[in-house]
Amino acid sequence: MEHPLPAKEITDLIDREIKNLLIPEQPKRLYDPIRYILSLGGKRIRPLLALMSYNLFANSFDTILKPALSIELFHNFSLVHDDIMDKAPIRRGKETVHIKWDDNVAILSGDAMLVQAYEYLEDISAEHLVKTLKSFNRSAREVCEGQQLDMDFEERSLIDQPVSENEYMNMIRLKTAVLFGFSLELGGVLGDANEEVCNQLYEAGVQLGLAFQLQDDLLDLYGGEKFGKQVGGDILNAKKTFMLVKALELSSTEDHDLIIATMNDSLIEESIKIDRIKGVYDHYEISKLAQSQIAQHLDKFKVVINQVSTERGGSMLKFVESITNRAV
Amino acid sequence: MEHPLPAKEITDLIDREIKNLLIPEQPKRLYDPIRYILSLGGKRIRPLLALMSYNLFANSFDTILKPALSIELFHNFSLVHDDIMDKAPIRRGKETVHIKWDDNVAILSGDAMLVQAYEYLEDISAEHLVKTLKSFNRSAREVCEGQQLDMDFEERSLIDQPVSENEYMNMIRLKTAVLFGFSLELGGVLGDANEEVCNQLYEAGVQLGLAFQLQDDLLDLYGGEKFGKQVGGDILNAKKTFMLVKALELSSTEDHDLIIATMNDSLIEESIKIDRIKGVYDHYEISKLAQSQIAQHLDKFKVVINQVSTERGGSMLKFVESITNRAV
Repeated sequence: MEHPLPAKEITDLIDREIKNLLIPEQPKRLYDPIRYILSLGGKRIRPLLALMSYNLFANSFDTILKPALSIELFHNFSLVHDDIMDKAPIRRGKETVHIKWDDNVAILSGDAMLVQAYEYLEDISAEHLVKTLKSFNRSAREVCEGQQLDMDFEERSLIDQPVSENEYMNMIRLKTAVLFGFSLELGGVLGDANEEVCNQLYEAGVQLGLAFQLQDDLLDLYGGEKFGKQVGGDILNAKKTFMLVKALELSSTEDHDLIIATMNDSLIEESIKIDRIKGVYDHYEISKLAQSQIAQHLDKFKVVINQVSTERGGSMLKFVESITNRAV
Repeated sequence: MEHPLPAKEITDLIDREIKNLLIPEQPKRLYDPIRYILSLGGKRIRPLLALMSYNLFANSFDTILKPALSIELFHNFSLVHDDIMDKAPIRRGKETVHIKWDDNVAILSGDAMLVQAYEYLEDISAEHLVKTLKSFNRSAREVCEGQQLDMDFEERSLIDQPVSENEYMNMIRLKTAVLFGFSLELGGVLGDANEEVCNQLYEAGVQLGLAFQLQDDLLDLYGGEKFGKQVGGDILNAKKTFMLVKALELSSTEDHDLIIATMNDSLIEESIKIDRIKGVYDHYEISKLAQSQIAQHLDKFKVVINQVSTERGGSMLKFVESITNRAV
């Protein structure tokens, strides 16, 4: 059996496929935004994981390529709609769809992209389609639930309605991790792995997704200026990240009140606000805590991949290492 | 073989099923709006047509019931999102979702309802699923295209960018009629009709949908106060209906300019505006023209139904008569 392809080559393949996606010209205001958001790039991690998972069992990508694109389409649909809801001006360093056009365009072209995601499941063979549709639906619904929980959390008062670590982890599981789970599971299902292995791959994907989101939280503060994002943006937006949730949970009454007073102070200079909150995080070693959580989730991921295929899992593990060691 | 059920009994069955839909409690702001919009009623025409179409070939409703609900879920998703885009305050006499909650809630619960629509396709047998998913996807995409065209039309100037009758008919085909087409086709597919018959049913549904939308345009002006809608609301909103499109096409230069001047006059009293435009419509017998169009589309619909089953088509034809003779 040939070796699995390295990540770089698979990503190139995916990018080519995305460039060749058939997106109609008319109506322009429906389809131009789809072309636009897909052209902004991104790391294509989800379809890549699906292909790498499939590669654990097969050498060609024939049956996985289009379904893998459906994950990327779904992911981009959720970005377009989330950006409206979060009033986000920038995505991947460029204007978001609802800013470049308007809210209506972002709503409707997002809807069309969600439908298009389902279109990319059409070519799955009848024997695999029922299972795939069910899993896709469940993940899609859970992503919506996660986004709602995230918005609900933002409404809650830091003082008397704190978000618990459990609540936070459940939210990111829904909002981010289940789609990673689906990506790996899809590779297994279409690669004709048995049900138990497919379930394991799903769970491995969820673990990876959790690690990925926790790392995202960390990178906002410790990652330097990347992807057109402002360092410490989450602090300035009083976003309830893992770090904030843990810091509020672990800190002394004095530090707890300092965090809240600083977060709620709209007059304080931005860099001072970030430094002060970061100071408390550092005092309680929150980033170390996050890193240890990340390591635990990655370990669980690795155990499954090695179990499924010691021989063919190396390429995927190498890729995951490359994306999880970035600057943390 | 037993007789097909009459419309009233099937509608009761559908209403019961909708009442028993499993919609989770949490997150509340995601799922309460879904419960709300579905509780507002509506005529359930689309699932009813699917069941009646199925009834042309079978006596039970076992395999059609859940897939038929997916059409109603999709339809309600599109209403929730369209109401945001159209800034509509009222739907079925009650507050629209984006007014009762807010835009974000309406966006996300609409998304979840679209996903739920796909969940209700899950139980379709493997042999029918591929075909059904493809047809559903195509219709769903076309509905999005139709809504975009409708919005594009609203931006166009009455003076130098008139919407042609062809353009208008294409728009309502996409926005409204294809989902009627899918409803009838679904009944055929799940009723094990052959492909040619399924295609005919689809086309019959499209014809019915066109008639239905043209009638809706007429009823806005000639239907009296119904469904909590204002008589002549389309005129007040300068909505490009069949009547307006045809009146602009057929009228003398003088009347043409009168329509535009009246439509664009924001100071004129509402009832006078409506009367004046209606006067021009009446002069050119636009409503007669619309009624003749409706009759032609209904004739095409009837021909197919009689062809498919003279014996079992009566119940469906009776129902369609009952909804198309209302006040026109």
